[in-house]
Amino acid sequence: MYQLLDYSPQNFVRTLPDAEPGFPAIHGSEIVRWTQLQQPIAADWLRAAVDFWQFHPHITTDLLDTAARANFEEYPEQIYVDLHVLTAPNVEHLSFEQVGLVMHAQGVVSLHAGSVFDGVAERIETSRGLIRGKGPDYLFIRLIEAVLKPYEHYFDQLEGELDDLESEVVHRPSQRMVVKILKVKRQLSLMRRHVSPLRDVVGSLEASAHPLIKRENRPYVRDVRGKVQAIYERLDAQRSLIESLESIYLSSVNQRTNEVVRILTVFSAVFMPLTFIVGVYGMNFEWMPELSLPWAYPAVWVVMVLTAGAMIWWMRQKKFW
Amino acid sequence: MYQLLDYSPQNFVRTLPDAEPGFPAIHGSEIVRWTQLQQPIAADWLRAAVDFWQFHPHITTDLLDTAARANFEEYPEQIYVDLHVLTAPNVEHLSFEQVGLVMHAQGVVSLHAGSVFDGVAERIETSRGLIRGKGPDYLFIRLIEAVLKPYEHYFDQLEGELDDLESEVVHRPSQRMVVKILKVKRQLSLMRRHVSPLRDVVGSLEASAHPLIKRENRPYVRDVRGKVQAIYERLDAQRSLIESLESIYLSSVNQRTNEVVRILTVFSAVFMPLTFIVGVYGMNFEWMPELSLPWAYPAVWVVMVLTAGAMIWWMRQKKFW
Amino acid sequence: MYQLLDYSPQNFVRTLPDAEPGFPAIHGSEIVRWTQLQQPIAADWLRAAVDFWQFHPHITTDLLDTAARANFEEYPEQIYVDLHVLTAPNVEHLSFEQVGLVMHAQGVVSLHAGSVFDGVAERIETSRGLIRGKGPDYLFIRLIEAVLKPYEHYFDQLEGELDDLESEVVHRPSQRMVVKILKVKRQLSLMRRHVSPLRDVVGSLEASAHPLIKRENRPYVRDVRGKVQAIYERLDAQRSLIESLESIYLSSVNQRTNEVVRILTVFSAVFMPLTFIVGVYGMNFEWMPELSLPWAYPAVWVVMVLTAGAMIWWMRQKKFW
Amino acid sequence: MYQLLDYSPQNFVRTLPDAEPGFPAIHGSEIVRWTQLQQPIAADWLRAAVDFWQFHPHITTDLLDTAARANFEEYPEQIYVDLHVLTAPNVEHLSFEQVGLVMHAQGVVSLHAGSVFDGVAERIETSRGLIRGKGPDYLFIRLIEAVLKPYEHYFDQLEGELDDLESEVVHRPSQRMVVKILKVKRQLSLMRRHVSPLRDVVGSLEASAHPLIKRENRPYVRDVRGKVQAIYERLDAQRSLIESLESIYLSSVNQRTNEVVRILTVFSAVFMPLTFIVGVYGMNFEWMPELSLPWAYPAVWVVMVLTAGAMIWWMRQKKFW
Amino acid sequence: MYQLLDYSPQNFVRTLPDAEPGFPAIHGSEIVRWTQLQQPIAADWLRAAVDFWQFHPHITTDLLDTAARANFEEYPEQIYVDLHVLTAPNVEHLSFEQVGLVMHAQGVVSLHAGSVFDGVAERIETSRGLIRGKGPDYLFIRLIEAVLKPYEHYFDQLEGELDDLESEVVHRPSQRMVVKILKVKRQLSLMRRHVSPLRDVVGSLEASAHPLIKRENRPYVRDVRGKVQAIYERLDAQRSLIESLESIYLSSVNQRTNEVVRILTVFSAVFMPLTFIVGVYGMNFEWMPELSLPWAYPAVWVVMVLTAGAMIWWMRQKKFW
Repeated sequence: MYQLLDYSPQNFVRTLPDAEPGFPAIHGSEIVRWTQLQQPIAADWLRAAVDFWQFHPHITTDLLDTAARANFEEYPEQIYVDLHVLTAPNVEHLSFEQVGLVMHAQGVVSLHAGSVFDGVAERIETSRGLIRGKGPDYLFIRLIEAVLKPYEHYFDQLEGELDDLESEVVHRPSQRMVVKILKVKRQLSLMRRHVSPLRDVVGSLEASAHPLIKRENRPYVRDVRGKVQAIYERLDAQRSLIESLESIYLSSVNQRTNEVVRILTVFSAVFMPLTFIVGVYGMNFEWMPELSLPWAYPAVWVVMVLTAGAMIWWMRQKKFW
Repeated sequence: MYQLLDYSPQNFVRTLPDAEPGFPAIHGSEIVRWTQLQQPIAADWLRAAVDFWQFHPHITTDLLDTAARANFEEYPEQIYVDLHVLTAPNVEHLSFEQVGLVMHAQGVVSLHAGSVFDGVAERIETSRGLIRGKGPDYLFIRLIEAVLKPYEHYFDQLEGELDDLESEVVHRPSQRMVVKILKVKRQLSLMRRHVSPLRDVVGSLEASAHPLIKRENRPYVRDVRGKVQAIYERLDAQRSLIESLESIYLSSVNQRTNEVVRILTVFSAVFMPLTFIVGVYGMNFEWMPELSLPWAYPAVWVVMVLTAGAMIWWMRQKKFW
Repeated sequence: MYQLLDYSPQNFVRTLPDAEPGFPAIHGSEIVRWTQLQQPIAADWLRAAVDFWQFHPHITTDLLDTAARANFEEYPEQIYVDLHVLTAPNVEHLSFEQVGLVMHAQGVVSLHAGSVFDGVAERIETSRGLIRGKGPDYLFIRLIEAVLKPYEHYFDQLEGELDDLESEVVHRPSQRMVVKILKVKRQLSLMRRHVSPLRDVVGSLEASAHPLIKRENRPYVRDVRGKVQAIYERLDAQRSLIESLESIYLSSVNQRTNEVVRILTVFSAVFMPLTFIVGVYGMNFEWMPELSLPWAYPAVWVVMVLTAGAMIWWMRQKKFW
Repeated sequence: MYQLLDYSPQNFVRTLPDAEPGFPAIHGSEIVRWTQLQQPIAADWLRAAVDFWQFHPHITTDLLDTAARANFEEYPEQIYVDLHVLTAPNVEHLSFEQVGLVMHAQGVVSLHAGSVFDGVAERIETSRGLIRGKGPDYLFIRLIEAVLKPYEHYFDQLEGELDDLESEVVHRPSQRMVVKILKVKRQLSLMRRHVSPLRDVVGSLEASAHPLIKRENRPYVRDVRGKVQAIYERLDAQRSLIESLESIYLSSVNQRTNEVVRILTVFSAVFMPLTFIVGVYGMNFEWMPELSLPWAYPAVWVVMVLTAGAMIWWMRQKKFW
Repeated sequence: MYQLLDYSPQNFVRTLPDAEPGFPAIHGSEIVRWTQLQQPIAADWLRAAVDFWQFHPHITTDLLDTAARANFEEYPEQIYVDLHVLTAPNVEHLSFEQVGLVMHAQGVVSLHAGSVFDGVAERIETSRGLIRGKGPDYLFIRLIEAVLKPYEHYFDQLEGELDDLESEVVHRPSQRMVVKILKVKRQLSLMRRHVSPLRDVVGSLEASAHPLIKRENRPYVRDVRGKVQAIYERLDAQRSLIESLESIYLSSVNQRTNEVVRILTVFSAVFMPLTFIVGVYGMNFEWMPELSLPWAYPAVWVVMVLTAGAMIWWMRQKKFW
């Protein structure tokens, strides 16, 4: 399915498709047309669009190759970008979808799935912001910016998760944490594989001197570039935080072992001498003069209490607990 | 052995070699010729090819130096690339073979072993895709792309392996894992040593402005470049995953030690005081009034049960298990 | 609220705002005007400023987007920078605020919160240093430099904190340290996310050949650039120090465990043989000739002392304590 | 000592030095002269060579400064490189020596110690390969290539050593390994300090457009560059392998501790309850009815066997061994 | 205090200052003048120098800002560098001082503390080396080189220290080492913060095409650049060595724990069964037929010896010691 949004500062027309592949002509040089092709799309509709706008054949190939890395192509009459949008920005499971954008002199053709561009469409319809008064390049920049939103949302969510994870690692370390940490690391690694081409694409767009992007709108490109850069830096920061949590978990485990061993040592140091002493007077030698002394038993108790006390005092000294 | 594939949009001719080294002339300017030289090849055949196409003598040297690093050379009339193809993309043992490709105005000469280019040959023969309608530069790009396939296949396989390894490390850590992790790390290190020159070569090809690669086919070069980049990023991602597994294994071992020590401490803390108590009443002093009290024995049992209970309660408190 | 500082080598006039948004004209070509807009500012005041100075509309958008990354924009008639100033440079909690600076031919417009620029204002009023004799570019550079001060102050403070933390980790390692280390790491990570765009901005400013920055004042830009670089290097140095502390903490914990286990082993090695010996003579066999020997009891003591001595000597040998 | 090798495709003349410093003239424009100056060389001989060929005075300074970093200098009439050759490529102890090469229009002057260039001299004498038919630039490239050989040999040897070390770390970890690992790491660090300038030098040579290196021989420079690159990548790969071995050694030690502690815990868990039980019936209370029951003793044995069995079953459950 | 060294190949004049700030004129175009300003210097002397040589005012500012990062400035008539010299190159405590050098057409002005340039002054006075025959650029290069000497000296010393530390870590690991390692790491981190700007400065000098540095002396600049690079690489090498020592220390500690635990386990495994056995025959059951058998006592000894032997044999098997 597709729809066309034709707009100018004064007008806004939404056209729904005919049964047959084909596109109405644009009336008026001020009109900007946003052609929305929604995935899944029939191949003949796609081809109709490519023919109508006379795109380079490579664009068709690339739009259909959903496994391709995000990329950026300049043609004399078009700018083509291919981006990955994060469709399920929940922390449990990440999924990505391909979004293709082609800017030409009279508008933008977008090929996408889901509702990532609904916000921009609504701004056009309700004429909020600058968008109705600007050309196709501004629309193009806003659409790229819309692709970044779910990434920002994901990192906001992840920040909260990591705060929780941090306090768990510090206060209640358990083996379950390792699984969580590993999951987050894999997600961040996957994110990096999607954000890094995104950064390349937006960087190429910023560096490009293509005449379709007017000089006055270039600062907006730089804003988008700054946003991608900020996403990348958050990714790095969270990656380094998760690595810290990993190493903190390791020292927590070792610290716990240390505490447990200390308790073991305290018990051993106190009870081993005592058990030895009582063992001595459990021997059955005929000649053991101590055994017949009436005060020997209390004396042994005194010795044992002193021994235990000395041990405890010594281990206190050593900061055993 | 060698074979020649001469094709144009309408024609396709496969020529098998004569007994004598030598090549038939190309008839028709539209014909693209793909000269397949299959390893192992007799040196005189190779020399015949180099003479026939009037290649720079360095190409011969380089084609014969099987230990050379992948490289890219531009000559006025040819583009030469030398790549390493992954021949046994199973995870157990990696092996690589050298592939040489020389593009000239009328076709491509390939020197290779194995069946890495069979898919492309078949596409030409059955006239699938765009390949028959395009010139030698498109063939050249497709052949380079074919070299990347086994790498992608390897990483797909490895991804599965690492998933298994991950769940093993988390749930059943054992020393055997260390050997596996080390093996994967060595493979990834070896892969990097082969993928990194590949990336350099494709990067040089993309940056090159050689007239043999027509402007209209440059987007396909960029696609190949994107694929190599994606392979490189997967390599990095898997390397960082395997390093995570390594550090998780270490914390798992320490965590297990911690658990074992905790059990040891529980036993010691419960039984050391009890053993001491029973030792006390095993002493043979003559004057031990408790011994003759009839309720002393049950009383000692009560004391011991209380002691054990206190110990267990205290260690529960401390979250020992 | 806003105020205007108009100055030349001889004059200094401070103008407070009217009730209505609007700016008086500048009288005299030598006058440099610093327009201070203090956050929070009413949007119409901001718009009045942008209109009065005929700024590019993007500057308004960017000044109002407080979440934006620090950035640098050159326009034909203005240079715009957007920086983050550290407002609470105490080590407990970091907070940042956005500062916007626009330099034009006749002065600088600053949009800021807090008192970060008070020092510069005072230098102008009291005519200290070179500032009154130099143009708007020099003022612009000094304002950017003023933004760096709180960062330097923060790192001075942190250096002291890390010295304390270091001596604690080395002499009194405890789990509490892990929390501190993690806190510092997070702060440094946050700092990096703010300092890194700052470095980009100042780097762009240094690289820029905008005519508004006079050749004679370029060395001062390079000084500022050197200061940002030095801040960045301190950040790196402290990050690497905190990572050292982390790994030292881990070895301290393991070292402590080692000591505790050594004590445990000493006790076990001394008392286990003794307890065994006394156990032997506590057996009730009828035929145990040793039991009736009068010198057997002292002999057992001698044996036990020798055993204990041998154990202690052997463990001394092994450097157990 | 020195010797001169004058050669052309047809001729080869070896000249030994006179007693006096001095060089015979070159007869014939096709002749390429390789002036071999063997270290240790008298300073006047070196000066004679520099005078004869009219070198820049800095070359003399640099040739005599044996501690200098490898470097590359272009002069209008000469190309000068200064390299470090690995003279004792055994894994026990590395030693390096300086090699200076100056290429000029009629040949190459080499200053070196040892036999690093003997292979090239032999190829010239026996007219193997292309060397006799090519100019001084080809000789120059081959001499630089000869310097790389011992590095490649070293890494081949080290690869074998690391394989052995790996299997030792995995199967028989011992503290001795740490010393070996450290030794290899230091060697690799030293190697990096020598290979890294080498790479810079060869990189500068490749990037240079000096007319002395003819266009047709540039591919051979790129080959040498590829070889240095490959050496560098092997260095990195081996460095990362040795770091893996280090971390594997650490987990092996911890794993071994884990096993030992498990055994300790098994013994304690089995024998502590038993020792407690026998202790109970070793008490001397007058009223202990169990003691007089005839079946009590076997019953205690049954209880003890059941207890031990329960403990063992429980620990089996917990995968203690 | 200051002094002037005026020299040419034939002449050398040392001038000490008048009481009043001021400088004598230079007589003769061949004369090179080295103006040495020794810290601490009165501000009016410094200003007199800057006036006499007509320096850019920024040089004064920068010379007085002792906390500034090393930097490099080109002016049409001067080259200015600001470096940090290591004044106390002992390994215990590092201290740095600022050195300013300004080269102009007729000489060099240096502002420094301590005796870092004494060697160069002596070479001029005694006319050793090339220095008297070369211009101010050569002097300038030699002075920068003199600044590097103490760094090299420091790393020589540190190398010795690290060798000692290494053998200590391997053979006698103790907690004291951690403090030493941390100290060295902090020093290296501090060094990096000083060497890194030094490298930038010398790199800028090498890249500069300022006419004051004559073409024939550029190779000497490259030599200095190579030396800084070598210092940087040594810094990196030592940093990576100290990190190795850190991780070796950690495995040493764990290895020691392992050994201690092994001994503990051996004692427990041998004596726990024996103590149990003797406990059994210490029970007071009336019906214990073994007790009255005359050979029971020796039999128990035999059983105990066999048990102990079996345990020892089994643990030998397991390579416990």
